[in-house]
Amino acid sequence: MFNKITIIGCGLIGSSILRSIKKLKIAKTINVFDKSKEVITFLKKENLIDEVKNINESAKDANLIILATPLSAYKEILLSIKDVLKKDTIITDTGSAKKEINKIIKNLNLKDISWIASHPIAGTEESGPQAGFPELFKDRWCIISPSDNSKKEDIEKINLFWKKLGCKVKTMSFEEHDHILSLTSHLPHAIAYNLVRTAINNQDKFRKEIIQYSAGGLRDFTRIAASDPIMWKDIFKDNGENIIKALDNFSNNLIELKKAIEEKNDSKLIEIFSKTKDVRKEIIKAGQDTAKPDFGRKKD
Amino acid sequence: MFNKITIIGCGLIGSSILRSIKKLKIAKTINVFDKSKEVITFLKKENLIDEVKNINESAKDANLIILATPLSAYKEILLSIKDVLKKDTIITDTGSAKKEINKIIKNLNLKDISWIASHPIAGTEESGPQAGFPELFKDRWCIISPSDNSKKEDIEKINLFWKKLGCKVKTMSFEEHDHILSLTSHLPHAIAYNLVRTAINNQDKFRKEIIQYSAGGLRDFTRIAASDPIMWKDIFKDNGENIIKALDNFSNNLIELKKAIEEKNDSKLIEIFSKTKDVRKEIIKAGQDTAKPDFGRKKD
Repeated sequence: MFNKITIIGCGLIGSSILRSIKKLKIAKTINVFDKSKEVITFLKKENLIDEVKNINESAKDANLIILATPLSAYKEILLSIKDVLKKDTIITDTGSAKKEINKIIKNLNLKDISWIASHPIAGTEESGPQAGFPELFKDRWCIISPSDNSKKEDIEKINLFWKKLGCKVKTMSFEEHDHILSLTSHLPHAIAYNLVRTAINNQDKFRKEIIQYSAGGLRDFTRIAASDPIMWKDIFKDNGENIIKALDNFSNNLIELKKAIEEKNDSKLIEIFSKTKDVRKEIIKAGQDTAKPDFGRKKD
Repeated sequence: MFNKITIIGCGLIGSSILRSIKKLKIAKTINVFDKSKEVITFLKKENLIDEVKNINESAKDANLIILATPLSAYKEILLSIKDVLKKDTIITDTGSAKKEINKIIKNLNLKDISWIASHPIAGTEESGPQAGFPELFKDRWCIISPSDNSKKEDIEKINLFWKKLGCKVKTMSFEEHDHILSLTSHLPHAIAYNLVRTAINNQDKFRKEIIQYSAGGLRDFTRIAASDPIMWKDIFKDNGENIIKALDNFSNNLIELKKAIEEKNDSKLIEIFSKTKDVRKEIIKAGQDTAKPDFGRKKD
């Protein structure tokens, strides 16, 4: 499908792409660059890569370059490789926020390069290449956001690429992407981090008990609040405007809920809780979660 | 173990107790009362009960009475049955908040009755007797809170009862219970309800997309926000004081997080996110959740 694919950044997402495209034989040559020696050592040990190359050697002559690093590394990477890029190279990424990268690409004024942003909505709370697996993208959505001057055939290639990896693909503008993801992913992460931080307070003399009895609800949030701190710091910076707006709406709703609790307002509380019950059904109907109680989880 | 056990309220929790004690043959006679005709019809159809009795006939001569209704029904139930209670009957419950029920028991001035509150920390987002199953309590904590005049042998009986059902049992005062649960369960539920309500806004023209792409985090919260509205309305009323305190701490922390996002404060964001990552490890180490990524969930 591609003569040469280069993956830059090889953690959970990058290594899952690597494993998948090797398995599916989507490229004749695959180059991988990661600035971490531990990552490269791991990839070699697992026979996922043969040669170790520097970033420029990796990117040279690639038909498709996939950025799978935290967002804050994009600029430096693009500055490093921009002079070795082949004409008509497609550059894509896997990042969770799109506004800043679009600004960077625009400012770099890359000529004859096809920039098409991608966001595979896949991942787990784990990080690093040891957590990756080739089926990570199976049945997951991938949102692609072409730029104004993306060629139609390049968009089609990226579309097909993610489909081969198992994704369902949806195209939307990066503004729409950033708005939707601020609500489906970024706000929930902000709230999960904040909740775990509030509930597990080192000053609380019952800290141990709070861990012990966390199965009543708290444990659900600790999964998301265990996600990679660097990656999330970048997302909160890049999509800050949308996230702040969502946080403000959240806080206003929380004031209303608090008032209903203080007033012991039966009908208001039931109204709030009943509406959200129906949302769960819609999410299951949309194929976005298991219908099994407790996520079908079992004790190890 | 008991000559006669009466279960009042037979939804997810009550019916799971019923199934479990029938399977384990813990009582010679089991009586069940539920005010819902649909519930009784279901229990008969499933051969979980033989006879239909009114609440007084059910409670009469019981050695152990288990209240498994929403908290707001307790008072009326106790008023109904108090005159038929046998001397030395043990009354327990399964409720998630303890302050109000203790007040009610005190005010009723029940003589020669042994009141020992229980809270099995078990359940799923589903409700009703069709969602119950006998293994619901396996390896889950049950917190018991004896009253000042509970007899030692009665406490021992309740302890053993929950252990037979598969629970690990912990004794604590009801004040401790209500504080700890406000953080491990009640705050997370309040926040989940509020988050889902904020993210899924009928005025948002991307409502459909927000459901569609909810696998990036939001779906985790919709599970908890699908819990029984009546049950939770009661919990928020009964443990309101502790919950309001927790919500205020949450809001103060959220202001700090919002400031860090607005200021694009790298080190503060990383600090917040790193601490919560470690909590997940503690919870898994305490046997309170699966170590499998994504709760081990698979698509149906």
